Amino acid sequence: MSGNSKNKENNTMEKIVSLCKRRGFVFPGSEIYGGLAGTYDFGHLGLALKNNIKQSWWKRFVDSRRDMYGIDAAILMNAKVWQASGHLANFADPLDGKKFNTMLKTEVGAGVEASISYLRPETAQGMFVNFKNIVDAFHPKLPFGLAQIGKAFRNEIAPRDFLFRQREFEQMEVEYFIRGEEWEKYFEYWRDEMLDWMREVGLNMTKVHELEVPEAERAHYSKRTIDFEFEYPFGRKELFGLAYRADFDLKNHKLEYLDEEAPTEVGVGAEVGEKIIPHVIEPTFGVDRAILALLLSVYTEDKKDGEVRVYLKFKPNIAPVICAVSPLLKNKPELVEYAFEKVYTPLKAEFGRVAWDDNGNIGKRYRRQDEIGTPLCIVVDFETLSDHAVTVRDRDTGVQERIKVTDLQNYIKRKI
Amino acid sequence: MSGNSKNKENNTMEKIVSLCKRRGFVFPGSEIYGGLAGTYDFGHLGLALKNNIKQSWWKRFVDSRRDMYGIDAAILMNAKVWQASGHLANFADPLDGKKFNTMLKTEVGAGVEASISYLRPETAQGMFVNFKNIVDAFHPKLPFGLAQIGKAFRNEIAPRDFLFRQREFEQMEVEYFIRGEEWEKYFEYWRDEMLDWMREVGLNMTKVHELEVPEAERAHYSKRTIDFEFEYPFGRKELFGLAYRADFDLKNHKLEYLDEEAPTEVGVGAEVGEKIIPHVIEPTFGVDRAILALLLSVYTEDKKDGEVRVYLKFKPNIAPVICAVSPLLKNKPELVEYAFEKVYTPLKAEFGRVAWDDNGNIGKRYRRQDEIGTPLCIVVDFETLSDHAVTVRDRDTGVQERIKVTDLQNYIKRKI
Repeated sequence: MSGNSKNKENNTMEKIVSLCKRRGFVFPGSEIYGGLAGTYDFGHLGLALKNNIKQSWWKRFVDSRRDMYGIDAAILMNAKVWQASGHLANFADPLDGKKFNTMLKTEVGAGVEASISYLRPETAQGMFVNFKNIVDAFHPKLPFGLAQIGKAFRNEIAPRDFLFRQREFEQMEVEYFIRGEEWEKYFEYWRDEMLDWMREVGLNMTKVHELEVPEAERAHYSKRTIDFEFEYPFGRKELFGLAYRADFDLKNHKLEYLDEEAPTEVGVGAEVGEKIIPHVIEPTFGVDRAILALLLSVYTEDKKDGEVRVYLKFKPNIAPVICAVSPLLKNKPELVEYAFEKVYTPLKAEFGRVAWDDNGNIGKRYRRQDEIGTPLCIVVDFETLSDHAVTVRDRDTGVQERIKVTDLQNYIKRKI
Repeated sequence: MSGNSKNKENNTMEKIVSLCKRRGFVFPGSEIYGGLAGTYDFGHLGLALKNNIKQSWWKRFVDSRRDMYGIDAAILMNAKVWQASGHLANFADPLDGKKFNTMLKTEVGAGVEASISYLRPETAQGMFVNFKNIVDAFHPKLPFGLAQIGKAFRNEIAPRDFLFRQREFEQMEVEYFIRGEEWEKYFEYWRDEMLDWMREVGLNMTKVHELEVPEAERAHYSKRTIDFEFEYPFGRKELFGLAYRADFDLKNHKLEYLDEEAPTEVGVGAEVGEKIIPHVIEPTFGVDRAILALLLSVYTEDKKDGEVRVYLKFKPNIAPVICAVSPLLKNKPELVEYAFEKVYTPLKAEFGRVAWDDNGNIGKRYRRQDEIGTPLCIVVDFETLSDHAVTVRDRDTGVQERIKVTDLQNYIKRKI
């Protein structure tokens, strides 16, 4: 990368971090007390963005499927989980020549009943330890998956790059259980699913690259791992991952599955199937990295009327605010009343993510909504009072359409 | 309470705990490793229930309002936060005559940069420390609120009573900022809002009681606190709380607010308002207690056809599964195909929370869906193939209606 383009890229990160704080997306954690490295707090718009991303993921990978079971396991787990999973022995980074375990430790209970526990460093184990519970409750047939969205913690030696490397972060993960011999088919299937979802939320796919992790760098049990990398301003680094983990996890936890669909041996009347250890395909998504990569994908500068304009080109289904409603003039009660009662209130009731914006002149309002990525700005003007239509302005093109107030809900639904 | 009714009540808790595990609502945390006291894992149905409760809360208290700002702060915070809030000095339970601080401690960072941090014991401080960030980003006018849903941790000496007293739990909280002189009005307002929401999710309001916390038991800064108590089988205990915290929190954190609407002194041209410390009304809801109280509210036994029937009388908007779709017979491809393609698939796409159930005979399916609280069971039978109508059976009354397949979506929407 040339010096110039490197400066430009660093500049982009700075601009995004600054916009996130200024406009209420993301704040440094515990900021008024000097911060706590590796933690961030989400403000109103960042949280709306995060919720939209999580909901889009959950809808696609859980709610719309018949073979997926949601889990929400506790962050604190019995330390034996981490012994069995290998994290106690191996989850370490090198520090001054020694190995430094990056699990955060705490003591649970009091006095003689106190025991060491760890903040989970990944959501995966919360699903594996519930494998039997789910099988007993729902009797799923292979293949089936467990899915979880939740926080995880790693005591990173050097947290950095905004949301990229934090000590507290959130994961969206699937553990998909299959018969071992079918792993290649389902690996490809999940590869496609992951790519489809990335497109769906609006990541810039020209910046997404697949890295086939070479054998020497893979965990010993994995026959194949793909890192989906993203071109961040600070380099091409991991975004999401897809791993074939074979039967490593269920074996560690001494779990098995009665495969009733397996051919039974002739003459063994009591047998209703074969006990097997299912293999696992694991698609993992970082929520915070998804947000960072998305912000980098949608951040846009162009020139409008000789001025630099900044806007976030969120897809309408992901944008924190779907539309803003304004009266043309703030000091005209008839416009304010119409805009509030006939336009804002019903849209707010229907879509939730609707803003009221009557501050400053219309040009300023447009710039402000552009900067937080609101796809549509709706303005009630004097004509509205007679023609019952409003001006709807498109964020990306600046084009304005005249839409009947009675058609607004359907118009917006089509956009989402 | 008499011995008999006490036994019956304990029995109810046992039945609910057992149903929760057996049907995939809630499992003891880290169960296959002997558990970790005070932690629970949510399975597919419990998580769906939890998400419905959280979404109903968020929709009412954030999305449908103009004066509320969502926050999602990190669980790990700079220890100075807990110094300022008083938790480091005072957040303790008595243990063997000594005070035992119930915050869970951990060490963040490595080597000389390591520092003590705590898992937040409440979500409230995550909002207070972001007060200035939200004011700077959104310029809200008083009154306005911050809202957060998130995990909190307390090292309870004796966790007990299922979801009631855990070491890891989830809160839904509002910090509502007002001018001090208006506290009584907004206290009443939030009292009503809380009660309305409890009704909305379907709590048994005859078991909800308001306890005016007497002055001697209130925090010194609070002029009024109400505990909403619930009649659990193990006694009448806290469910939610409403506190008037005066300016205690913002003062602790040395935060203030420029009230531009305050009358300015004549002649002081540069002043655009008055710096004040807003007061706080704090409605707090425990997610897990909401779930437990709701399960206790909806758990019902009656007799149907001489057999005891167990069902969960969830409101349709809160039920984990809104409807189950079945072919009358599993081995008739024409029924299975119709049920799956013409009924299940479009309903699943529209509502998400739709189950496919073709296991066992119809009576068993009804019992199974009753037990997880599914309001509607839809059966495709041979007549369906000619009249394109299905049997819809109501969970509570057992009454069956014949509904046109084309009317199903609207029929269900009306129920939600």
